[in-house]
Amino acid sequence: MSRCGYGAVRGDRGRLEAVAHGHLTTPPGLPLSERLRSLWVDLCELLTDLRPDVMVVERVLFQVNARTAMSVGQASGLALVAAAQAGCPVAEYSPNEVKLAVAGYGAATKRQVQAMVQVQLGLDAPPSPADRADALALAVCHLTGSGLRHALVEARR
Amino acid sequence: MSRCGYGAVRGDRGRLEAVAHGHLTTPPGLPLSERLRSLWVDLCELLTDLRPDVMVVERVLFQVNARTAMSVGQASGLALVAAAQAGCPVAEYSPNEVKLAVAGYGAATKRQVQAMVQVQLGLDAPPSPADRADALALAVCHLTGSGLRHALVEARR
Repeated sequence: MSRCGYGAVRGDRGRLEAVAHGHLTTPPGLPLSERLRSLWVDLCELLTDLRPDVMVVERVLFQVNARTAMSVGQASGLALVAAAQAGCPVAEYSPNEVKLAVAGYGAATKRQVQAMVQVQLGLDAPPSPADRADALALAVCHLTGSGLRHALVEARR
Repeated sequence: MSRCGYGAVRGDRGRLEAVAHGHLTTPPGLPLSERLRSLWVDLCELLTDLRPDVMVVERVLFQVNARTAMSVGQASGLALVAAAQAGCPVAEYSPNEVKLAVAGYGAATKRQVQAMVQVQLGLDAPPSPADRADALALAVCHLTGSGLRHALVEARR
């Protein structure tokens, strides 16, 4: 794990507004424990600054290989604990649920997600790199409730 | 992840002494973020109480499935950050290196590792469950240096 995208979106009566977005990077060359600590400090700072009502994270797909799953686990574990420490509930959506919510279908490309997030949040340019757009899309998915409805449909199958 | 074994060993001129060992459990039924937070709090407390010179963790094998790797990653990421916060360096050994160091060969069974750890640390009984013995074995592996020497041989191949 060397880069972790984030996005904060405010939803007010159907109007969506991007409050902040960016990505956290860890200093290359340092031992893993120091790189993870740097990520931990940044996550805690973000939560203190932004005070979100809910943290939305991507549900990891288990099709990925074990090395990737391990790295994602190390970063996501820190995000989950930082949220718990801040008293912030956590919601999870799969990449498919997010794409369905923001782009209308579950197989949308990264570029389509970036374009739709730009339109829905009224941004001047598509958020880049893609993980920044993905983070904003997770927030949009949660706020529009489409993801939730989709999850309900899935659960009823 | 529902259980995480730990063991603290003091090495003094070749004499090994078990200072503490046990396992951390997380409250079942709580959301994942709260369970990981509970583990985080316990890990930080252990580091404060024991003040180890080094933390030794198991290097995860990438033969495991992605779901297991993800869970192990979530716990190990917390352990690594807790160590970094405490200014404690981290060493890693593979399960094979540990078994070679404590039992003499890399394919030792769990029961053999438990028996050898009991003998080497002069314990009244084999440490149980196995993950508690594994944690003590990691510390023994690091302190006896066998693991290190084995890693050197491996690296030179």
